[in-house]
Amino acid sequence: MTHRTAEFIDAHPGAIGLDRDLLATCIAACLECAQACTACADACLAEDMVADLRSCITTDLNCADLCAATARVLSRHTGYDADVTRATLQACLTACRSCGDECASHADMHDHCRLCAEACRACAKACEELLASLG
Amino acid sequence: MTHRTAEFIDAHPGAIGLDRDLLATCIAACLECAQACTACADACLAEDMVADLRSCITTDLNCADLCAATARVLSRHTGYDADVTRATLQACLTACRSCGDECASHADMHDHCRLCAEACRACAKACEELLASLG
Amino acid sequence: MTHRTAEFIDAHPGAIGLDRDLLATCIAACLECAQACTACADACLAEDMVADLRSCITTDLNCADLCAATARVLSRHTGYDADVTRATLQACLTACRSCGDECASHADMHDHCRLCAEACRACAKACEELLASLG
Amino acid sequence: MTHRTAEFIDAHPGAIGLDRDLLATCIAACLECAQACTACADACLAEDMVADLRSCITTDLNCADLCAATARVLSRHTGYDADVTRATLQACLTACRSCGDECASHADMHDHCRLCAEACRACAKACEELLASLG
Repeated sequence: MTHRTAEFIDAHPGAIGLDRDLLATCIAACLECAQACTACADACLAEDMVADLRSCITTDLNCADLCAATARVLSRHTGYDADVTRATLQACLTACRSCGDECASHADMHDHCRLCAEACRACAKACEELLASLG
Repeated sequence: MTHRTAEFIDAHPGAIGLDRDLLATCIAACLECAQACTACADACLAEDMVADLRSCITTDLNCADLCAATARVLSRHTGYDADVTRATLQACLTACRSCGDECASHADMHDHCRLCAEACRACAKACEELLASLG
Repeated sequence: MTHRTAEFIDAHPGAIGLDRDLLATCIAACLECAQACTACADACLAEDMVADLRSCITTDLNCADLCAATARVLSRHTGYDADVTRATLQACLTACRSCGDECASHADMHDHCRLCAEACRACAKACEELLASLG
Repeated sequence: MTHRTAEFIDAHPGAIGLDRDLLATCIAACLECAQACTACADACLAEDMVADLRSCITTDLNCADLCAATARVLSRHTGYDADVTRATLQACLTACRSCGDECASHADMHDHCRLCAEACRACAKACEELLASLG
């Protein structure tokens, strides 16, 4: 996914306001995390202990929506606005940390939570690095 | 839309971590702003002077995605996380200010930009008030 | 919401390929249904009997995603493609019927399901009427 | 992305109503196509000849929204509804064909349109094969 995303960044006719490698990594991480969270929410819903997984499901759904929106915002370079990018990355980072912690807390019981925690941590790291590069 | 949204808040069986009136107003404002921005982007695309409206279209698309994600996050009370809510509102507020300023700058030329600027300002105000109530 | 949506349709500089009243009604119904389904899914998740509401939650989430996508597709008139509009409306209609039936089946136990069933029926009706007008 | 998606399908505690390989391929294709269309729309907007790319931008935006919604619907197995899955795949297929044709028509001029046409064709093929397996 990172390779595909990098190809599109290179095919863009305008200026790119961000580091290309960090950007491609972050978009790919957002897309993978959004998908992980959508799948984890559905798997949690199917567990016998669904009543104990309510917070996990909500955190998954919120993280999926924010990661999906962030991937889109990061993919638009025409009329780039650093303030919007920064606030969006901050929201995504906050959701990924929250969801990563929640999923990690029952990663030993559910494989989908283990996989989702990994995706959240990777996405949080990518957001942090892209944020740091914004100065 | 605010009335409908308030009915769902009252029908929720769990605790609501936010002021109900400010919450209903903010969710409705996000939904109206998301729709305004989607419609404004398409109308800008159809204008003869589309080449001068590139930034407006991008800002609209970003604002639409962030408002839609914010309306969803604000509608989930089960497993409420104040940090995620705060960062999401901050991102939405930033996008609404950016899009409101952009659209207002050619509101006299395009009625869709005038309507969109109004929706962005109303949404920014609702986000600010809900953020302020979070403490 | 219908009034606001109609204002944007009138502000569009290009041709509108659909009946304006049916279109404004359908976009507003999609947005209200998307919000109803998001809120109903979260309220179901908070119910003591959440384990019995798994299908309702999934149907709600699917219907929310399809209604949100349909509202966006219907709001884009530039480069209008009747085949895409028709298939999108058909998917939205199918999801609204499925979710309306599911929510109606426990509308007497949960007020959020009663409200959501009403939103789904209204949206299904609006999609059917817009589809019929497409010929 | 297909491998990641397959891991989540295998980690799901409930029954999966669809062929696992076709499903994983289709979800990954939808996510890649959604991202390709979002990136292509923004790149088209930055081209000097943006006024000639209006239909391409709209088709991209519609295809992105439908592919994103389809990836989510296909990722929910709890309370699986074959009618909703079928209608959703049909809408996604229609949008991918429309966008694939549009982008292919100027693929020799813009590399982002060439890449996007490839993603649309791959996604259309994956939707067709999954639809065929539904019977």
